Order: sequence, then C-alpha cells, then structure tokens
Amino acid sequence: MKKYNLAVLGATGLVGSTMVKILEERKFPVENIYFLASKRSAGDKIKFQDKDYIVEELKEESFDKDIDIALFAAGGAITEKYGKLAASKGIKVIDNSSLYRMDKDTPLIVPEVNINDIKDDNKIIANPNCTTIQAVVALKPLHDKFNIKRIVYSTYQAVSGSGVGGIKDLEEERVETYPYPISFNALPHVDSFLENGYTKEEIKMIDETKKIFGDPSIKVTATCVRVPVKYAHSLSINVEFEDSFKIEEIRKELEDASGVIVKDDGENNIYPMAIDIEGKDSVYVGRIRRDFSLENGINLWVVADNVRKGAALNAVQIAEAIINKK
Amino acid sequence: MKKYNLAVLGATGLVGSTMVKILEERKFPVENIYFLASKRSAGDKIKFQDKDYIVEELKEESFDKDIDIALFAAGGAITEKYGKLAASKGIKVIDNSSLYRMDKDTPLIVPEVNINDIKDDNKIIANPNCTTIQAVVALKPLHDKFNIKRIVYSTYQAVSGSGVGGIKDLEEERVETYPYPISFNALPHVDSFLENGYTKEEIKMIDETKKIFGDPSIKVTATCVRVPVKYAHSLSINVEFEDSFKIEEIRKELEDASGVIVKDDGENNIYPMAIDIEGKDSVYVGRIRRDFSLENGINLWVVADNVRKGAALNAVQIAEAIINKK
Repeated sequence: MKKYNLAVLGATGLVGSTMVKILEERKFPVENIYFLASKRSAGDKIKFQDKDYIVEELKEESFDKDIDIALFAAGGAITEKYGKLAASKGIKVIDNSSLYRMDKDTPLIVPEVNINDIKDDNKIIANPNCTTIQAVVALKPLHDKFNIKRIVYSTYQAVSGSGVGGIKDLEEERVETYPYPISFNALPHVDSFLENGYTKEEIKMIDETKKIFGDPSIKVTATCVRVPVKYAHSLSINVEFEDSFKIEEIRKELEDASGVIVKDDGENNIYPMAIDIEGKDSVYVGRIRRDFSLENGINLWVVADNVRKGAALNAVQIAEAIINKK
Repeated sequence: MKKYNLAVLGATGLVGSTMVKILEERKFPVENIYFLASKRSAGDKIKFQDKDYIVEELKEESFDKDIDIALFAAGGAITEKYGKLAASKGIKVIDNSSLYRMDKDTPLIVPEVNINDIKDDNKIIANPNCTTIQAVVALKPLHDKFNIKRIVYSTYQAVSGSGVGGIKDLEEERVETYPYPISFNALPHVDSFLENGYTKEEIKMIDETKKIFGDPSIKVTATCVRVPVKYAHSLSINVEFEDSFKIEEIRKELEDASGVIVKDDGENNIYPMAIDIEGKDSVYVGRIRRDFSLENGINLWVVADNVRKGAALNAVQIAEAIINKK
C-alpha cells in the first residue's frame, strides 16, 4: 500500500490536534508527517503511530519538504500566507479556513455530498464551515430525492467552535474569547457582524450550502447562536421541498444516508443531543416531522461534533478521497 | 381608589412568588390577599405590602372567601380541580396553566396584543405559554402593519420554565427534572411528546399564536429546545409577511411598540441576551434583518424573562386590565 507524506499546520490547536488523532484512528497511510505550528509551539512533542515527532516552526521553507498533502488548520491569515506557496510546490492543500471557500476555482467539499467536485488539477481544497458540513450531510439525501426549495437554519453552537479559548470562557466562567459571558447565556453572535445585519457565520451557512449543493437557486437563511455547550453543534432546520413526500420516505432516506445516524423516538426520549455526540463521527438526526405550515415542509434537529465532522474529520476524509483517487 | 381582594394559588412556587413580587412592585390596589398553596407550604410566611401573611392550604372552602380575582399558578391539575369552582363563586380567574387556553369560550390574553378579547362575562382568562407571550408582543405591531403569512420559531428556553426543579438540575448538575443533564447540553425536548412528533410546547406555540392574533390563517411551525440558561427565553423567529416593507419600517414599528425594547447594533455587540434580560419586564428584540430567501421576510432574535413577562407579569397585567375596566 502506498504511503504518503503529510503536513499538519496548526497541529497543536484544537482542530489540528484532532486531525492528528483522526489520522491515527483511521490508520491513514503515512510515510512521513510534519507537524507545523507557530514559534510558540515549536519544540512540543507529538506521538503519532508509535513514533515521536517534534513540532516544527512553520516557515516558507517548510514547504520545500517532500509533502503530498498539507492539512491547514491554522486560520485564514496562515492560509493567505502559505496556501498558494504550498500549492505551487505541488502539495495538495486541504484548508480549514474560510479564505478560499467561496473562490470559484476552489472546490468546497463534504465527502458524503460532493466528492466529485474535486478535479485533478485542484491544488487547494476548502473544508466548509462546521455548521454547514453537518447540515448538508443530513440534507443531501433529501435534496437528491425531493429538491430543496428553501432552508431556515437556527443554530445552537458549541464553544469549541472558537477553539481552546471558547472552552476556557465556558469552563472558567471568564470573559475573554466572547464579548460577554457564555455561561448561562445564549449569544446571537458567531463570528463578526456585517453591514447587512448578518454575521459572517450566517452568510457562510447561506453561501456554502448553495455552493456545496452546486445549486444557487436554493433559498437559505440562517440565525447563528452560541450556547453554553462544549462540543457538538445542534441545528434546528426547517426545510421546504419542491416535491411532495411521505414523512416515512424522509426518515428512510435519512436512515440510508451515508454519514447519518437517525435517533428519533421522542416518546422514549430518544433524540440527538450534544453531550451524547461529542467524540462521534456521524451526523445525528432526530425530531423528524412534517411542518404543517407548508405544503412540502419538514423540521429536523441535527447534531454533530463540530471539531470532528465539522472540521478535522471532514478534512481527513477529503485527504482519504484524494489518495483513493490517485 | 378602589381596592381589591386577591388570591394567589401556588404562591410559594417560582411563578406564584414572582406574581406576589410583581403585585407589590406595581402597587396593585390590594385590600385583602390570600396566599394559597399545597399542604406542604401551608404555614409559610409571606411579607406583602408591609404586612405579614400566612400561606393557607388550598381547599374548596378557600373560594368561599370574598375574592375578586384569583391568580392561578399551581399547574393544570389544580386549575381543573378549582378553576370552575372559583369562577362559579363570581371570582375572576387568571390561569397560568394550559388547561383552558384553547377552550373557545376562554380568552387567551397578552395585554399588549388582544386585551379587548376579554368580555365582561369571561370568568376564566388564560395566560398564554411563556414563549408565545414574548413572540406575539414582538410580532403584533408587525402583523398589524404588514400581515404575517408564516412564522418559523426555534427556541432557546431557560430552565426556570420548569420551575425550581429546572434551576436545580442546572445549578447542581443533577438529572431529575429533565431526562438528561441540561448542563453543557441542548435538549430538543420541552414538555411531552405527541404522536405526530411534536412536543406539546411546540403545539402550544403554534396554536396559541393563531388564537392570540385571532387569525387561524397564519401559518406557524416551531422547534422548542431547552438550553443551559437560568432565566429568559430566547427565540430565533423567521417571519414571512404578505405585504412588502422596508427594513427601517420594521425597526420603527418595533421601536414604537408597547412592551418592546429594541437592542440592535451588532457591530457594537449590542443585541438582547438572556443574562441581561433576567428580571426585566419588556420583550427585547434584536438581530432585525431582512431574510433574503423570501420576497417579504425577516429574521428576529427575541428575548424576555420567561418567569416575569412570560408568566407572572403577564397575569398581573391582565388583572390590572380587569380592574381598570371595572
């Protein structure tokens, strides 16, 4: 079996370290792996597939190494600085930042949904926003079958979406990462505000959903909210379809869908919830029910681990797809 | 000024004791007041308007007293047992339970919205569900002006909606009131489940919104979620109107509306949030923005103290309206 040379940028951060864990869990065929991070983390040790590695400081020269795939999990500024450089050296870049997501030449990939959007000459592949990934995994089989017309998202987002800082704000009841206490609160504020009153997070959900489905005609709106949850984002999703359906068909499509687990038996208190889904790989769907306010509508409750499927796992799945294509 | 004889049922509970506080704060013209509760609380002392009172055990004979208005905050079973009895003795009953809310002969009242629905011969007046109250206060001026066609509610509900038990589950990280831990979680489960997959809470929001607006043609759907917040429910509300509008007109209507305070300047981190609104009387509205997925749509974020405006205050306002009518 062919083995590959990887680099993980931001390897000591929350998403980066989860990528490392997932590469190991999934026995990714690694020949060499380079752990790159800021000067502050350089020198740290990481154990990977029974070998000890030293975290190296990220520099331009880092990309002179023999690297097949680089997983970028160090924020938009680092992608801006090194993304195209890495690509120019023939490295496949899988980028977790939002920088190139809406770039028309960059595919935005959720493996269960649109893996075929990756073309051989794509050098940078964008990993979508965490909330969007879990939404489209759940909605994909339904869109294929009944044609989504409009989506209304309301999110219940975990603090781990803001990295270690968000978790500390919640655990230590401090106010540093967020402008207000997150403990015992619900903050209708994820990422920065735009002039039109939306947050960047909301616009990401709207734009990325359309791009991943390859269908700009789908109507989408979103309200994004941070809640005092550590891991796993929850979404209340209202969907209108073009086509009619039986609610049993919706359930069947979800049960059969790749990457989806249905947990839906309210009378027995069975539904997806954040504390259960932390550390899990699938997208969990429950509260499946017809929306009686529309001719062809449903409501769903969709929960997934935002650090794993919402970021690190999705990136590793993209890397797996790339090597399987080769 | 005429003074009235009141009774408060469930006076030692979370809603009942808040009613007592609010009657005092608002200087309700009280001649005599009777605090009624279960045997367990009988004998407790309550200080009200500088007098000491003893909580009495609630019995059938309690309603033989000279009472003008009885505020019921002791749950549906107590309303079922004593509501009609009290009414038969000429007492105006303001009931916080859901028992008579959808009864066609019982008005369901939010003073800012439909106070004129109270007719002189109504003996029982129902206080709506907490989430519905704050929603309709915010939506009323917009419905009057632009005609609401459809509403999608997603709620972020505080544990105080379940009384002292809910607060204890959160504060003590115990699992007693809810089937699962509420700390660091988001539970898509408020009130019990129905066969159609909805919870009773969701159906209350749907049915009560239509009844309060007196318009069964309004389309409504809802997903209700409990979050680790102590006081104040937050709502993500998506609204479609029949008529076109400018977003400035929406803001203006909300700014001018009775019982509403607009807090909406995202770029300066100004928006309503639960920890700020605990203990406040108004309904706070922010994140006002056009929903670009519809021809005539908006998104709103609406927060109010669920124990005050969502229950106790609304009931006292109904009592005030009754005595002002007399």
